[in-house]
Amino acid sequence: MNKMLRDERVTLSHGGGGKAMRDLIQSVFTDVFEPESSEDQARLMSDALLEKGAKLAFTTDSYVVTPVEFPGGDIGKIAVCGTVNDLAVGGAKPLWLSAAFIIEEGTEIALLRRIVASMKAEADKAGVKIVTGDTKVVGRGSADQVFITSSGVGVIPADRDIRADSIQDGDVAIVNGVLGDHGATILAARGDMMLMSDLQSDCAALGHLMEAVCHAVPVRACRDATRGGIASSLNEMAEAAGLSIELDETTLPLRAEVKGTCEILGLDPLYLANEGTLVLFVAPEHADAALAAMRSVDTGRDAAIIGRAKAGTPMVTMKTAFGGSRIVDMLVGEQLPRIC
Amino acid sequence: MNKMLRDERVTLSHGGGGKAMRDLIQSVFTDVFEPESSEDQARLMSDALLEKGAKLAFTTDSYVVTPVEFPGGDIGKIAVCGTVNDLAVGGAKPLWLSAAFIIEEGTEIALLRRIVASMKAEADKAGVKIVTGDTKVVGRGSADQVFITSSGVGVIPADRDIRADSIQDGDVAIVNGVLGDHGATILAARGDMMLMSDLQSDCAALGHLMEAVCHAVPVRACRDATRGGIASSLNEMAEAAGLSIELDETTLPLRAEVKGTCEILGLDPLYLANEGTLVLFVAPEHADAALAAMRSVDTGRDAAIIGRAKAGTPMVTMKTAFGGSRIVDMLVGEQLPRIC
Repeated sequence: MNKMLRDERVTLSHGGGGKAMRDLIQSVFTDVFEPESSEDQARLMSDALLEKGAKLAFTTDSYVVTPVEFPGGDIGKIAVCGTVNDLAVGGAKPLWLSAAFIIEEGTEIALLRRIVASMKAEADKAGVKIVTGDTKVVGRGSADQVFITSSGVGVIPADRDIRADSIQDGDVAIVNGVLGDHGATILAARGDMMLMSDLQSDCAALGHLMEAVCHAVPVRACRDATRGGIASSLNEMAEAAGLSIELDETTLPLRAEVKGTCEILGLDPLYLANEGTLVLFVAPEHADAALAAMRSVDTGRDAAIIGRAKAGTPMVTMKTAFGGSRIVDMLVGEQLPRIC
Repeated sequence: MNKMLRDERVTLSHGGGGKAMRDLIQSVFTDVFEPESSEDQARLMSDALLEKGAKLAFTTDSYVVTPVEFPGGDIGKIAVCGTVNDLAVGGAKPLWLSAAFIIEEGTEIALLRRIVASMKAEADKAGVKIVTGDTKVVGRGSADQVFITSSGVGVIPADRDIRADSIQDGDVAIVNGVLGDHGATILAARGDMMLMSDLQSDCAALGHLMEAVCHAVPVRACRDATRGGIASSLNEMAEAAGLSIELDETTLPLRAEVKGTCEILGLDPLYLANEGTLVLFVAPEHADAALAAMRSVDTGRDAAIIGRAKAGTPMVTMKTAFGGSRIVDMLVGEQLPRIC
């Protein structure tokens, strides 16, 4: 019914609601995502939602990362992984995603196609479906290439209640892998620093990982450590739980290259953004089983215990490699903007 | 727990994931929207969702309108109404909304507060709750003040199946009110044309209206007539249904001011965007009951029959006031960009 899209770049007419928009949407988006209905809304049902005591989880996130393509991923991959992870860390099984694009006039159609292909691949891997979407086009200089907002809907089984204020004195903090790869990769990809590295973003969907852990042990609390890094996630959790969290510097999983980048630039890896990293708390007697479950999944290979919750003033502290102790405060701003 | 926000404008540090962001979110967003949980995801359940045969409806839309404040509304009001309407026109009872903000560095906090207050007021009126959100900040010149993406979740009762391909030969097309007010208002509000008018955007949530009609008669198909105007919605419906749609120019509800604006500028009101206007199809024997149900609701006061579906080539035609007939084609681009 629709002709092939012949344009090489997005123009304002692609956002106007007429034929040009229909051709863009069909050729670039719906031919790949294959929504089930031609109506504007997705109409869905899942048996999981009908189980007694199950809850619907609903999240949203806008993605504005620059550059939009970087080693290990692109803005499309982040948009899928980030939203899947926002669902997963609450114990929800991710089911359906929306994708809304704000596109700057002049953006290459080929770039959009790469981003959309990357979203589709990542959604397939994570077992979710992109069921509804939107495109808007804004004039040159009114946006930066492309922004994506994805919302997610999932189902939390009746027996899961994962929340930061459930953390108990003595609970163990576990991360699924190395810290700071995403932030360090974006920094290098911007090219301002003339840093050469083989670093890749850790960008990954963690739904399968969370399912593996949740089936193995009761997870008390979980957050993904994105903007503001692991330090900000832990501070939020300490505050919600009313407990102190004590990290051990010697156990923090960090790549030598990330450490090096941080040393050169005076950054702290605890504050670098991640896109495939979560921190969860379990009772100490469940720590080994949780670690084993995480390590059985690709995205949890490097899982490690990094600290413990303790009764005390809500704050995060770290035993340093030299035997001292320091406060790991929340950042006031951020080391880097446009990181995710 | 959080101090008052003292800044007058948004800075990059408000988007960084640290304290500044937490203070902005708390002071500007969560103090107004009052989400139930401090977790990043909303956890929800509705009895309506558990009814046998019910379906979950899921939609998303980004809003990039300029100017962000205009007579009759602002970008926040559009973001709530537009997403409520995307749910409602499919027969879904709107329940929950997300709101993701992309904010340009330098945007006034006071403007954000006005937008958020407007969203809250409109959500209350529509009977929906804004349950989850996100904020990102981008550098000066990387966005235009503020973009909002809202997604919506609602429930479609088992007995409703509203879709454009259900339209039958002879079905009657009804609109709920006057056409083109939003587009003409935005045009005047931009100030480029030095047009003075008392026009206001028709921006309104149509959930209550759709519930009233759906309880009165079976609605065959429905679309809201936003970007591309009523002409584009009707063309999409004609194509999906495989039928011709014939309009009658003399019955189109148009304000004299909108007609005048269009005559001066050479625009066609059929293509002007609306933000509180829908067109629905019912069987001819249900037309009177549908009209009565619509007119019983504030947003349907000016409801009118504007045409009929007929067997024939899928296209939209209009009997003109002078007795002729013309094709109402889909636009190629749009008369105006950044309209919603």
